[in-house]
Amino acid sequence: MRFLSDNTASACPEILAALQEVNHGRAPAYGDDEWTQRLDRCFSDHFGTAVRAFPVISGTAANALALATLSPPYGGIFAHEESHIAVDECGAPGFFTGGAQLMLLPGEHGRVSLATLQAAARRPRGDVHNIQPAVLSLVQATDLGAAYRPREIAALSGFAHERGLKVHMDGARFANVVAFLDCHPGDITWRAGVDVLSFGATKNGAMSAEAVIFFDPALARDFELRRKRAGHLLSKSRYVSAQLIAYLETGLWKRNAEKTNRLAQDIARAANAALLHPVEANQVFVALGVERRQGLREAGFEFYDWGPQSDGAARLVVSWDQPEDEVHALCAALKRIL
Amino acid sequence: MRFLSDNTASACPEILAALQEVNHGRAPAYGDDEWTQRLDRCFSDHFGTAVRAFPVISGTAANALALATLSPPYGGIFAHEESHIAVDECGAPGFFTGGAQLMLLPGEHGRVSLATLQAAARRPRGDVHNIQPAVLSLVQATDLGAAYRPREIAALSGFAHERGLKVHMDGARFANVVAFLDCHPGDITWRAGVDVLSFGATKNGAMSAEAVIFFDPALARDFELRRKRAGHLLSKSRYVSAQLIAYLETGLWKRNAEKTNRLAQDIARAANAALLHPVEANQVFVALGVERRQGLREAGFEFYDWGPQSDGAARLVVSWDQPEDEVHALCAALKRIL
Amino acid sequence: MRFLSDNTASACPEILAALQEVNHGRAPAYGDDEWTQRLDRCFSDHFGTAVRAFPVISGTAANALALATLSPPYGGIFAHEESHIAVDECGAPGFFTGGAQLMLLPGEHGRVSLATLQAAARRPRGDVHNIQPAVLSLVQATDLGAAYRPREIAALSGFAHERGLKVHMDGARFANVVAFLDCHPGDITWRAGVDVLSFGATKNGAMSAEAVIFFDPALARDFELRRKRAGHLLSKSRYVSAQLIAYLETGLWKRNAEKTNRLAQDIARAANAALLHPVEANQVFVALGVERRQGLREAGFEFYDWGPQSDGAARLVVSWDQPEDEVHALCAALKRIL
Amino acid sequence: MRFLSDNTASACPEILAALQEVNHGRAPAYGDDEWTQRLDRCFSDHFGTAVRAFPVISGTAANALALATLSPPYGGIFAHEESHIAVDECGAPGFFTGGAQLMLLPGEHGRVSLATLQAAARRPRGDVHNIQPAVLSLVQATDLGAAYRPREIAALSGFAHERGLKVHMDGARFANVVAFLDCHPGDITWRAGVDVLSFGATKNGAMSAEAVIFFDPALARDFELRRKRAGHLLSKSRYVSAQLIAYLETGLWKRNAEKTNRLAQDIARAANAALLHPVEANQVFVALGVERRQGLREAGFEFYDWGPQSDGAARLVVSWDQPEDEVHALCAALKRIL
Repeated sequence: MRFLSDNTASACPEILAALQEVNHGRAPAYGDDEWTQRLDRCFSDHFGTAVRAFPVISGTAANALALATLSPPYGGIFAHEESHIAVDECGAPGFFTGGAQLMLLPGEHGRVSLATLQAAARRPRGDVHNIQPAVLSLVQATDLGAAYRPREIAALSGFAHERGLKVHMDGARFANVVAFLDCHPGDITWRAGVDVLSFGATKNGAMSAEAVIFFDPALARDFELRRKRAGHLLSKSRYVSAQLIAYLETGLWKRNAEKTNRLAQDIARAANAALLHPVEANQVFVALGVERRQGLREAGFEFYDWGPQSDGAARLVVSWDQPEDEVHALCAALKRIL
Repeated sequence: MRFLSDNTASACPEILAALQEVNHGRAPAYGDDEWTQRLDRCFSDHFGTAVRAFPVISGTAANALALATLSPPYGGIFAHEESHIAVDECGAPGFFTGGAQLMLLPGEHGRVSLATLQAAARRPRGDVHNIQPAVLSLVQATDLGAAYRPREIAALSGFAHERGLKVHMDGARFANVVAFLDCHPGDITWRAGVDVLSFGATKNGAMSAEAVIFFDPALARDFELRRKRAGHLLSKSRYVSAQLIAYLETGLWKRNAEKTNRLAQDIARAANAALLHPVEANQVFVALGVERRQGLREAGFEFYDWGPQSDGAARLVVSWDQPEDEVHALCAALKRIL
Repeated sequence: MRFLSDNTASACPEILAALQEVNHGRAPAYGDDEWTQRLDRCFSDHFGTAVRAFPVISGTAANALALATLSPPYGGIFAHEESHIAVDECGAPGFFTGGAQLMLLPGEHGRVSLATLQAAARRPRGDVHNIQPAVLSLVQATDLGAAYRPREIAALSGFAHERGLKVHMDGARFANVVAFLDCHPGDITWRAGVDVLSFGATKNGAMSAEAVIFFDPALARDFELRRKRAGHLLSKSRYVSAQLIAYLETGLWKRNAEKTNRLAQDIARAANAALLHPVEANQVFVALGVERRQGLREAGFEFYDWGPQSDGAARLVVSWDQPEDEVHALCAALKRIL
Repeated sequence: MRFLSDNTASACPEILAALQEVNHGRAPAYGDDEWTQRLDRCFSDHFGTAVRAFPVISGTAANALALATLSPPYGGIFAHEESHIAVDECGAPGFFTGGAQLMLLPGEHGRVSLATLQAAARRPRGDVHNIQPAVLSLVQATDLGAAYRPREIAALSGFAHERGLKVHMDGARFANVVAFLDCHPGDITWRAGVDVLSFGATKNGAMSAEAVIFFDPALARDFELRRKRAGHLLSKSRYVSAQLIAYLETGLWKRNAEKTNRLAQDIARAANAALLHPVEANQVFVALGVERRQGLREAGFEFYDWGPQSDGAARLVVSWDQPEDEVHALCAALKRIL
């Protein structure tokens, strides 16, 4: 029973159907096809404001391309020390930006707090000897399963903008947060000051589809050139765009997010006092202890250890295609051992 | 009737079927799934030697990642002045290598000749003031539709290796050449000295699938880190790998290549004396003159001008899903006007 | 008797004196000292317009930093195929720009002609697949010893600006051209449309001092950050700035340039019909033939072969500290053998 | 009275004399001159082992070039969070390496402790998702004025080497440590496992001269190409090399270091309980409080605040050309106010 990652999931039938549907005849290449051309409209509707939307095939590409558009090579990127761009992308931001420096911040539950950001922003003196802070990058939901509230984002963005920084959001699990907060997608993005969003769909049911959303269209041209140059402009773009359209238009994003959120809540309730972080998306972090963790594995559950081995913590992730009885079994097991 | 590019084609039914087939249950992410794990074997069989094979989603990614593995930042990359890496990738090799310099060579029909390479290689003095030649990159079939013969490749590779250069082959239309020469895939790669191949499938019927093939496995680790860092390691890798497996195992590569080659030959015969380059794959370059070219467009044929506007040249590309009657119509039109 | 390069020369007494003169007491570091602070004024006077001037210690640094300020990573830089940035800087432009591509142009005597530039500029289609032409880089004097006339530069710049390109001038031997043309320094720079100049002093008598001159001050901030980041902001900047001030204010630049130009003309007259390029600075290129070249070496003259060994060409460079009798001896030898 | 930085100092008479001495006649350019050719020998003698030594003109260049030679673009560089490469080089390591990531460590007095390094090294999992730790970079003396002991360095290097990391030392104030510990230069470098040293001379009396010392000569070729490409190979190298030779051969390094160390100890005694860090070189950090700090400034002393404004800390740096009575005045002032 696999709780390793939502990346291990298959693609939704709706996604396969969408691929089948666009798979006829020749269509202009490199994004000039009718489906890719529809994305701006489609995402503008979703966010309730005019956006530019560009399909890519991985979250790392979405993040690193977005950051390269926002930061000069001598820029600094404030990010949580547990964030995907810091820990799981083999230095992609440094590569795409030409050497911008991550300025890592601590923070409970993967969140950057305003106080921490303010303190950190005080450090660089602004002269030529220093990295020039250029971007604040937030993860929504955080890598520890928590969600920023609109007000938190607005406060962080407000401070960032005052200092001339742009705000990027890594929304690999964006849908889960919208579902959890039951808010409008605009509430936690442009209305709260986010400039560019990495909009994730792959983890939540797509095959391989993410989008970079520019709430400020002026940035888009630079992005397009960087994307091409990075090998991330697909010749047959229709097949990624079709996934994104289906994801949005069939409501797939919400159905899947609601399901995985609900199941994660079930696990959270079973873990109860052993929970390490608030469960506000589809990830559950549990303090099991080394032995109980081993026991859970022997009972047939697959998952990743989290943090130092000796901490005995486990990360449990629910996928859109997770059989519900696996979750029931997990809950039962957790209740038994905790 | 579209003869713009094989990139405008749809994906083969076999490819869609393969996606459907692997689309069940959770599978390890980031290439640890069983399909991706099979690729080494699958391509080793195809090439008749042990290789390491890595799926990526674009030819630009395949080329630039391969070149970055082969060239230091201060390296020079010999390539034809009409080659895709020089003309159509927005500087991807410079980005991925950290600034290696393309050393562009002229040559008939998109081919680099041994004499030209030898003359060019004489130029850099080898001291620290010069770019250090590191790679010879060949395109097979060339960007002007011609094919290198095994002997030509061996001569070029032999010279390159003597000088300490590695040999990369951009095989965006590799299948067409194997079909045209009726040779073994090994004959125009490792047996002729090629070190790394960008193996194309997208233009020839896949949805979005290329592979980087290392004939020298020692280079693979560096490649894997660069791929991740470039956002080109897919979390749900199975969906690219499945395309590649289907492409090879169902014989799709050959069926499609033979079809598009055959139709290209039909067009070549119709164009006859107006041919600008030998037709040895699925691209046909024709000297039409500005007026006749205009006429052909008005007759309903879509294609790209080639070279300076005033040259009156046209590029006609046959796709795997090209209706044969479109080709017949084109042939008739060409005969009429030429 | 050394005619290898003006780089082999020593530093002028005026330069040493200037170092001695500023060598007292503590001074603000990193360019905040009074001498560095005077550079803007000093160079503004020299050029007859308000400029920003930044000292660096090598021509490669001046060129590459200037280009990085002018070109995005996906930019293209038009330059002569014999230019220093293409041939002698180990790929520095690619490194500093983050992978911009040199677009090399042929041209008589190291000059880029308007027609050649126009033809080359027609090639990139302007879409995302292409490198985006961003800079025209001219060398003054050219690497083959010729000088652009103000009108030529204006024509090239005019075309470049129309196309949205910036114009960079590599003035490693700038003083020689001003002396040769007997013009105002502004005539061959800002009045002719040059945006940024690499102003050379090292070859013409300084110890190690070049300056990057921005005729458009808006570009300077980005430059300053790149310079620091490249390790080219000197802590004890006064010692470079003092060289530049002495170079300009004592008229050293002109005295030395006039001397080396004059001696080069002597050699040119001696070489007569064997001259390969017009002698408009301090470099002389002579078609000697392999044997006579060998003879000249045996007679005690040191110089570099130029071009392919079998061409029998020689490059003879006059340094500011060249003993005049060495030049007389060379002239006599040339007359004897030619 | 300036205690801002040792960078504000002038150059020693011995240095000017050395420049004068080599300033005659033409000499081979780009490091082929006799003085630069002597550096390997000269530094090998200094360190008591065969080394390769390369002159550069700034500490940032020395550090960043060394790191680029030691780390792949996907590498991680462990360094103290207060280290010069992290704080004062505008991201130079990211630029030169092509995007390697600094992995910053806390530590008392600017020192990295073995325990901290071990804990940090446990974090990256070694798979392709992670930055690959490649280098440990230590500062000697630390940016807070402390010195690593040979045993500490050996322990850190031993652990680093076990993990496949190389060890770099930023020796901007290297001479001060050798003088303070009264040890052999080899004791805190190669005998303790250091692979590459940025050997500083500028802060300690040179005009503009640092050296990169490779204790493993195999790394040198890559370095030489990177140096050229970064614009850090001087055409007239003799003038930097002559500084380094004079610095070593006249015992200048030791005289100056002993003087500034001694004066720093005087200040340390005066500051007494207000000292923030052990004084083991020529920097003194004092907890003054905001008001007393202000008072000290009004009394005519110039220095930098250290850390957050409100901490009231001051950094006082002694230069080789500091008049001793300035130090006496400072000591008196400190005693008065503390």
